[in-house]
Amino acid sequence: MKPVRIGICGLGTVGAGTLKLLQMNAKMIGARSGKAVEVVHVGARRDMPDCNTQGIKVSRDIFDVARDPDVDILVELIGGYDTAKELLITALNNGKHVVTANKALIAVHGNELFEIAENNGVRIAYEASVAGGIPIIKALREGLAANRIQWLAGIINGTGNFILSEMKDKNRAFADVLQEAQDLGYAEADPTFDVEGIDAAHKLTILASIAFGMPLQFEKTYTEGISHITQEDVQFAEELGYCIKHLGISRNTEKGVELRVHPTLVPKKRLLANVNGVLNAVLVEGDAVGPTMYYGPGAGSMATASAVVADIIDLARANDGMNGVPHLGFSDGGSGKIVLPIDDVMSCNYLRITAEDKVGVMAKVAQVMSQHSINIEAIIQKEPAEGEETVPLILLTHIIREAEINNAITVLEAMPEIVGKITRIRMEQLDG
Amino acid sequence: MKPVRIGICGLGTVGAGTLKLLQMNAKMIGARSGKAVEVVHVGARRDMPDCNTQGIKVSRDIFDVARDPDVDILVELIGGYDTAKELLITALNNGKHVVTANKALIAVHGNELFEIAENNGVRIAYEASVAGGIPIIKALREGLAANRIQWLAGIINGTGNFILSEMKDKNRAFADVLQEAQDLGYAEADPTFDVEGIDAAHKLTILASIAFGMPLQFEKTYTEGISHITQEDVQFAEELGYCIKHLGISRNTEKGVELRVHPTLVPKKRLLANVNGVLNAVLVEGDAVGPTMYYGPGAGSMATASAVVADIIDLARANDGMNGVPHLGFSDGGSGKIVLPIDDVMSCNYLRITAEDKVGVMAKVAQVMSQHSINIEAIIQKEPAEGEETVPLILLTHIIREAEINNAITVLEAMPEIVGKITRIRMEQLDG
Repeated sequence: MKPVRIGICGLGTVGAGTLKLLQMNAKMIGARSGKAVEVVHVGARRDMPDCNTQGIKVSRDIFDVARDPDVDILVELIGGYDTAKELLITALNNGKHVVTANKALIAVHGNELFEIAENNGVRIAYEASVAGGIPIIKALREGLAANRIQWLAGIINGTGNFILSEMKDKNRAFADVLQEAQDLGYAEADPTFDVEGIDAAHKLTILASIAFGMPLQFEKTYTEGISHITQEDVQFAEELGYCIKHLGISRNTEKGVELRVHPTLVPKKRLLANVNGVLNAVLVEGDAVGPTMYYGPGAGSMATASAVVADIIDLARANDGMNGVPHLGFSDGGSGKIVLPIDDVMSCNYLRITAEDKVGVMAKVAQVMSQHSINIEAIIQKEPAEGEETVPLILLTHIIREAEINNAITVLEAMPEIVGKITRIRMEQLDG
Repeated sequence: MKPVRIGICGLGTVGAGTLKLLQMNAKMIGARSGKAVEVVHVGARRDMPDCNTQGIKVSRDIFDVARDPDVDILVELIGGYDTAKELLITALNNGKHVVTANKALIAVHGNELFEIAENNGVRIAYEASVAGGIPIIKALREGLAANRIQWLAGIINGTGNFILSEMKDKNRAFADVLQEAQDLGYAEADPTFDVEGIDAAHKLTILASIAFGMPLQFEKTYTEGISHITQEDVQFAEELGYCIKHLGISRNTEKGVELRVHPTLVPKKRLLANVNGVLNAVLVEGDAVGPTMYYGPGAGSMATASAVVADIIDLARANDGMNGVPHLGFSDGGSGKIVLPIDDVMSCNYLRITAEDKVGVMAKVAQVMSQHSINIEAIIQKEPAEGEETVPLILLTHIIREAEINNAITVLEAMPEIVGKITRIRMEQLDG
């Protein structure tokens, strides 16, 4: 199978991440695409020290990439409007598919660009333009395609959500957190696009057009920022049972489709209200499915590259026989990975032991654990309930092999001071 | 464009939902597919009173559907193993694509069935087999295709999650909640598949094979149910900062892939710990993207039908020019929907008004609201802070047109007793 040849324009944060990801996971990406995916040409104004461009043609003029007959897919990661638009038009007219992360470009010039693509029989893929690494465009355009979407609401600007989360959790003022966000690199030196909602409005425009089947209409999106939200508002909202989130909301009504970005009080108990920090989430209500939510990192080099490369894989898979996507996702029979027997699984554990209320039982239990090299992280031991002669002992263990904890449990259950079976529940931190 | 002709086998909960959804949203599904999608043949042992089969051929023998030359896609919704397997093989050997919601069939016989499909140049689509209406298979197989998946953890059995949620929130006993779940129709008369984790193990088997690129290996999945979890365990976990969730977990390790279903203590602050009731969620950690989560209804007639019909649309779109999926999701130029001007948007509002600390101010404010037909839902009025001569008044309004509340704010801001600008933040319940 012929390889798919990629040209990348722009080696900033996302461009460098895309190049790195295509190199780092090349073999797996090839197995999932059904053919090799090779970067053959990079267009960037200057060399980037962290990028490995060995064996790749490098041009200072990005338009050289758009005209290169050896490039099948052009990846536009330069950002901005005018040059990016011209670059896309050149690539499309040269018969290349385009992958872009440029939300401003798609929201403002998408209608025109899609038409040019269709006239040339090629595609523009733009999953990375909304909510970074979350495959929300695929979910809306394909996964929920059977539904009339009723509304969607999203936290689609990580900087804004970071600021509001910090204001709430640490009682800090807007200006103070904004300064920190700028220092951390979350917010630009000119934070207008983020805090005044323009970035979110670009993304909402795109989501709404897909959800409701209408042309992109950025200029009709109502946009309000978060710079007027004070610590007082955050506290009063909390008192009333709400969180303040900067949401993009689009709702289908009888009179038309709402398209609005503004700070919003959301009931605290909603999952969306509990999405904090720089993370993004989009909640979608479909007439058949009901509510579904998509959550993850909305920005960052590798997270955005994940969406860019997913689009590349989509294009590489397309037009193969079998509709491109292999049944289990890999075209080469898979990774050869084997299943680990449960005895070899490592996990932390919760143990609830019912013990006679006697002196020294906990010491004996601790000794058994020690003999099996099991570290104890936490213990709860309470007074026996009125009239009871047994007490519950709760232990949390450090991470340990399944076989070891099972052996320890067998020994413990044989102790005369321990009554009945021990309840064991595994624990997972689920934090990466 | 020739219509795509569908044969549905089985008119139970999901079958009836699928037929209804294809009829209810027929026009939109056609616009998204780029061609009409028509149900031409239904196979069911008996008539279903709520199903409109007018104009559709109905057979008592489901194999008549699998052999019908007028059927392009067979939708298998009969469930179970043997007959379903035979039905799929017959359809595949007759050159038909198959869409199925049958997790047990895919987890146990998928390897063999996929091979038969590939030999016949057709596909088996099975999005509905895991997590109902959540497009998790599409997310893993396509949206996250650039990632080496490191681990995934999912609440993939709604009945089990309902039981654990009720035990926690209402201090109820396992057996008591199980009885209610059976009465509500969430749990089968024989609840073994749900509470002993077999259903979750079927789904985990499928997710893990896609995530890690290995054949389906249901027989190697470690499975433990929730019937031994007591109210005491739920309380102790809470005290330690955890929730107990019945999770399917698969993790890539150097020695092999973990494949395990068991109750698990999860830190309360994790989003996954806050997924309650019959809802499902799958958290996936990819090496590039980091954590992403997919949340929604994991069962139910219309939610599952949403996934079944998404697969049908995928198959209908495939092998068209342009790779099938239109740029904005609709092939006919869209729905003709228009954007609603912000003045006509309806919402509830939070108002923070800074007022002089005088008698009668609240009455005047209330009068202005009343003159603009704005109902007040809640008020917070506090003592002025030490040395302050103003007080904050917080009002929550009932739902009202944007133009009305803006007029009211203008009038209020002109009142001599009101100091400076009023902060207005919209409110959304986001509950359907």
